[in-house]
Amino acid sequence: RILVSCCPDHTFLFLAQRIHNVFQNPFCKMDSDLFMRQFFEKESSTFTYLLADLDTLEAVIIDPVDVTSDRDIELINELRFQLKFSINTHVHADHITGSGILKKKIKGSKSMLSGVSGGEADVLLEHGDMISFGKFNLKVLLTPGHTSGCISLLLVDTDPQFVFTGDCLFIRGCGRTDFQDGCSKTLYQSVHTQLFPLPESTIVYPAHDYKGRTCSTIGEEKRLNPRLTKSEPEFCAIMDNLNLTQPKKINEAVPANMCCGFPFPD
Amino acid sequence: RILVSCCPDHTFLFLAQRIHNVFQNPFCKMDSDLFMRQFFEKESSTFTYLLADLDTLEAVIIDPVDVTSDRDIELINELRFQLKFSINTHVHADHITGSGILKKKIKGSKSMLSGVSGGEADVLLEHGDMISFGKFNLKVLLTPGHTSGCISLLLVDTDPQFVFTGDCLFIRGCGRTDFQDGCSKTLYQSVHTQLFPLPESTIVYPAHDYKGRTCSTIGEEKRLNPRLTKSEPEFCAIMDNLNLTQPKKINEAVPANMCCGFPFPD
Repeated sequence: RILVSCCPDHTFLFLAQRIHNVFQNPFCKMDSDLFMRQFFEKESSTFTYLLADLDTLEAVIIDPVDVTSDRDIELINELRFQLKFSINTHVHADHITGSGILKKKIKGSKSMLSGVSGGEADVLLEHGDMISFGKFNLKVLLTPGHTSGCISLLLVDTDPQFVFTGDCLFIRGCGRTDFQDGCSKTLYQSVHTQLFPLPESTIVYPAHDYKGRTCSTIGEEKRLNPRLTKSEPEFCAIMDNLNLTQPKKINEAVPANMCCGFPFPD
Repeated sequence: RILVSCCPDHTFLFLAQRIHNVFQNPFCKMDSDLFMRQFFEKESSTFTYLLADLDTLEAVIIDPVDVTSDRDIELINELRFQLKFSINTHVHADHITGSGILKKKIKGSKSMLSGVSGGEADVLLEHGDMISFGKFNLKVLLTPGHTSGCISLLLVDTDPQFVFTGDCLFIRGCGRTDFQDGCSKTLYQSVHTQLFPLPESTIVYPAHDYKGRTCSTIGEEKRLNPRLTKSEPEFCAIMDNLNLTQPKKINEAVPANMCCGFPFPD
């Protein structure tokens, strides 16, 4: 499936062209129409990513958080972006998604979540789906293990590629596998069959980091990840004995996130 | 002045070549030997930047923090980088620099601070100095106003360029000007004569952000910065009436940072 967003109207595009060159791309000159901005939410140490095509101004956001949605909306409006999709990599247990708020405040934007999650969303994603914004495409990779419905998103148009790994692969770590149908063996297989075969130059953008790091590469993680460089039985033994406490917000977050944060209080 | 680092020995370079292709560049293909990684320290909301030439493995770090120096050293060692310089953009008042710890733990690395700051460092920087690591060069721009000795650092070799603005220019804001010889008029002049004339595509990497944003561009700040788009008198009126409380660590941090965090407790 190719999930394309609607064309913006011409008046808007005219405005867009006038401000277009102001907001340049921090990445490859070859991809000079790509806008990508990383955000951080301190309490849950969550990263949110805003991506846009600077030519059409169509944008998508990955893993927005409820408490920082005003900040995200401010930048979307400042840069005249048209938000098409709010993509949730999974049903988060540690914070409430901002996709419900974004859907309410930005007319025409749609929430996304994997169908396997069992949750509700405007678009239920499947493995192999392509999410398009302007000329750019995010490929949906089903990478379960932290939860049964976890996805990663591969931006296929840049060199190096970017992969947004949610709670599957972290920088020198990975998501826990002890709730929400988590399974250490499944996570190990997801990383080794879906992520580690990507080009080593691929930039890894996770959903969290708890030490203030912001990104990594597939090459680094293949060599330096202290868990995922282990054999599968060793990895499972580590994961099955972490004895972590439950996230504080789990009882509030999971039900809210099962329907992409909607309905939510005004 | 051109401040070059020593050549690494040949044995080390041989090792380096073997792992070279593992750690690819998140930025332009044209600059595929450039490594740049942003880090965050939560308590003081400080960004640290590690830059390296992936060919020679020479590296510099900008605004390291004492409490996160172990994290920084870990990555430097994992990627086999040779840290040449720990650069302080100014005498910070809200945290203690990590440059003292880095100098002690990484043999041969040197601390840097502007001469105008009145502080002590292995290298006292002047406006126009070029700090070289491998084939890359950071140009020192004197941008006082937050303190009298504040510098910004312009990476001149990439397209777009990167500018590390310390506490001079923030994302939609700027550093306070009410202590350490701060002066709102001086800060306004620094931004308008040293930073805003840079190409609009230049990526702005500040020393702090308190809302979880990670970077901006000169183009965005010229149009959207709520303070610096004002006239100079309006800007000064805003800055001179902020009535901020003193940073909690100021009495500890300023004396330590006046000598780049050295001597420091073991």
